[in-house]
Amino acid sequence: MEQRIQEHAAVLVDWSARIEAGDDVVVHVDEGAHDLAVAVAEALGERGANLLATYGSAEMTRAYLSAHDDAFDENPDYERHLYEHADSVLVLEGARNTAESSGVPGQRRQAYDRARRAIREARLDTDWISTQHPTRAMAQQAGMDIDAYREFVYDATLRDWESLAEEMAQLKGLLDAGSAIRLVGEGTDLTMSIEDRRAVNSAASVAYDSHNLPSGEVFTAPTATEGEVTLDVPMTVNGRRVQNAWLAFEDGAVVDYDADRGAAVIGEILDTDDGARRLGELGIGMNRGIDHITDNILFDEKMGGTVHLALGRAYDACVPDGSGNDSAVHVDLITDLRESGRLAVDGESVLEAGRFRWEDGFNG
Amino acid sequence: MEQRIQEHAAVLVDWSARIEAGDDVVVHVDEGAHDLAVAVAEALGERGANLLATYGSAEMTRAYLSAHDDAFDENPDYERHLYEHADSVLVLEGARNTAESSGVPGQRRQAYDRARRAIREARLDTDWISTQHPTRAMAQQAGMDIDAYREFVYDATLRDWESLAEEMAQLKGLLDAGSAIRLVGEGTDLTMSIEDRRAVNSAASVAYDSHNLPSGEVFTAPTATEGEVTLDVPMTVNGRRVQNAWLAFEDGAVVDYDADRGAAVIGEILDTDDGARRLGELGIGMNRGIDHITDNILFDEKMGGTVHLALGRAYDACVPDGSGNDSAVHVDLITDLRESGRLAVDGESVLEAGRFRWEDGFNG
Repeated sequence: MEQRIQEHAAVLVDWSARIEAGDDVVVHVDEGAHDLAVAVAEALGERGANLLATYGSAEMTRAYLSAHDDAFDENPDYERHLYEHADSVLVLEGARNTAESSGVPGQRRQAYDRARRAIREARLDTDWISTQHPTRAMAQQAGMDIDAYREFVYDATLRDWESLAEEMAQLKGLLDAGSAIRLVGEGTDLTMSIEDRRAVNSAASVAYDSHNLPSGEVFTAPTATEGEVTLDVPMTVNGRRVQNAWLAFEDGAVVDYDADRGAAVIGEILDTDDGARRLGELGIGMNRGIDHITDNILFDEKMGGTVHLALGRAYDACVPDGSGNDSAVHVDLITDLRESGRLAVDGESVLEAGRFRWEDGFNG
Repeated sequence: MEQRIQEHAAVLVDWSARIEAGDDVVVHVDEGAHDLAVAVAEALGERGANLLATYGSAEMTRAYLSAHDDAFDENPDYERHLYEHADSVLVLEGARNTAESSGVPGQRRQAYDRARRAIREARLDTDWISTQHPTRAMAQQAGMDIDAYREFVYDATLRDWESLAEEMAQLKGLLDAGSAIRLVGEGTDLTMSIEDRRAVNSAASVAYDSHNLPSGEVFTAPTATEGEVTLDVPMTVNGRRVQNAWLAFEDGAVVDYDADRGAAVIGEILDTDDGARRLGELGIGMNRGIDHITDNILFDEKMGGTVHLALGRAYDACVPDGSGNDSAVHVDLITDLRESGRLAVDGESVLEAGRFRWEDGFNG
């Protein structure tokens, strides 16, 4: 087995999920994640943890949902009990076909998700981590050959997380102490309040309230958004391409929008509910191992020097008083500050033209 | 998808497991059983059952067990709860390498199995069914090409089970009414009592106390075994080849044994515990779709015109008064009566030279 797969498993089990002897661990294995699953099983055996593997087959799910009517049982007992008694859930993503669910009617999928809310909550109450094994289908979506894509995934994932966590702690400190954010760039001049909000140092570990491997971002939950922003990183949202989305805010809510491509998708998202017109997240990517866009939000939003904004639900960890934005959606859109643009806290630049205040070459 | 895979799924879900809307179904998917799993998922969706897929990866299990020490946690809660709340468990076997566990120390495996007794019991308390998808590894073990092996598996599995159940009911009736069994053949003259025992019409359905697909056997739990028997069907037992095993019984227990090959395996089995020297099962194969040996007990023991005897544990369903033989093992060995030999109940032949009493050509 390739050495890096075992390193990936070790980072996942030790740094990310903090697995210890006796932990009850669910390993959720996508169709294409088999090799990583074997390495994870070995790591769990070495640490004396318990292992139960579930099969995250996109083809099984597609076949099941396509054949079902929309009347799903609410939170089947057996699955709810499984997650309520689990300590950790390790989700090993690894699509063999990223379009596998394209034929499932949206309302079917939504009915299924709605019926499983308690199961999802139980899973989110565990020390869960999502990570991704590099597959050919994901390489294809990124427009890369499989060797180059493997390099990309492991560059992003096999980092010195302890040292990155220390660096990110500086940004978290600035955000926790600050109250006003200003984001400036081409087609962008946006102000937000982060008063009384808490930033999360998302260092790819449950010990940091972080549930993605790779991670490498600091995020918070802004309010009172005013101005306009251009989200220039192209991405696939709900299966459709979005390019250069533009949003205008007044009193914290979107009052106008446009896009070079995919404006209709943005419109649909905004119409979901009241909360979908407000921001749930401001995130700042700090993972320098991610140096280009692969149309995969797990990676794209962590790219060092980018900033993302999410329409919709805020994360509880950012909102100590529980007043966070509520919505059925959470859709991330990204603006690239690597070449130009800046993010300032209380009037002082923190990120400018791709460099953070504490980095060489910062010129703010 | 090949039509027969969908037919297999339909037989499994409807005839074997009797799945209904709202049932909580665990589908256990071996590495090589993916295509059958997709068909089963579709069938479960159509019937409105709930689906949770577990991943039965032999490679994950091998990696986990090899890395673990022998101190396993007893019956981890999360897995026990899963099975205690499940209605049905569909085990989709489909090895990609039948030797995958060959490097795992036997004591490791035994320690793991011992620590999981309550989980196993909970799973056996569901309406469980084991079936098998035809893989290249299983074809190789059978010494067949994959096309021929697929024909073999579907010939054995896609039967008119209702009609076979009716035929088997005749044999069950004879065994339930009878009290003395005599088995005669080359190197075989064995008598057994089946007084007060109940025969199981194993018609590949939970409605018949039958948990294998394919099945097609009638079995009971004999006592007071006397005489000798030659088990001439070659097979792999605990990873080692056994040929022409010979057992001699007195007062119901084995007093002597031999084999052309693998006598040591037989010796080890007999030494497991007191119950391992006594018979736990007499089974009579009645599946005419199985017409040759493939070194796979799921199929071999059901071959029409063969008889198998198991050393060790008796099935509860055969023993109304609960006095069945107890043992940690249950090892099936097969004698072939298709060419010659006979099985008699209370002095009257029931099976002779491969024909049952009610069949054309029976000459008893």
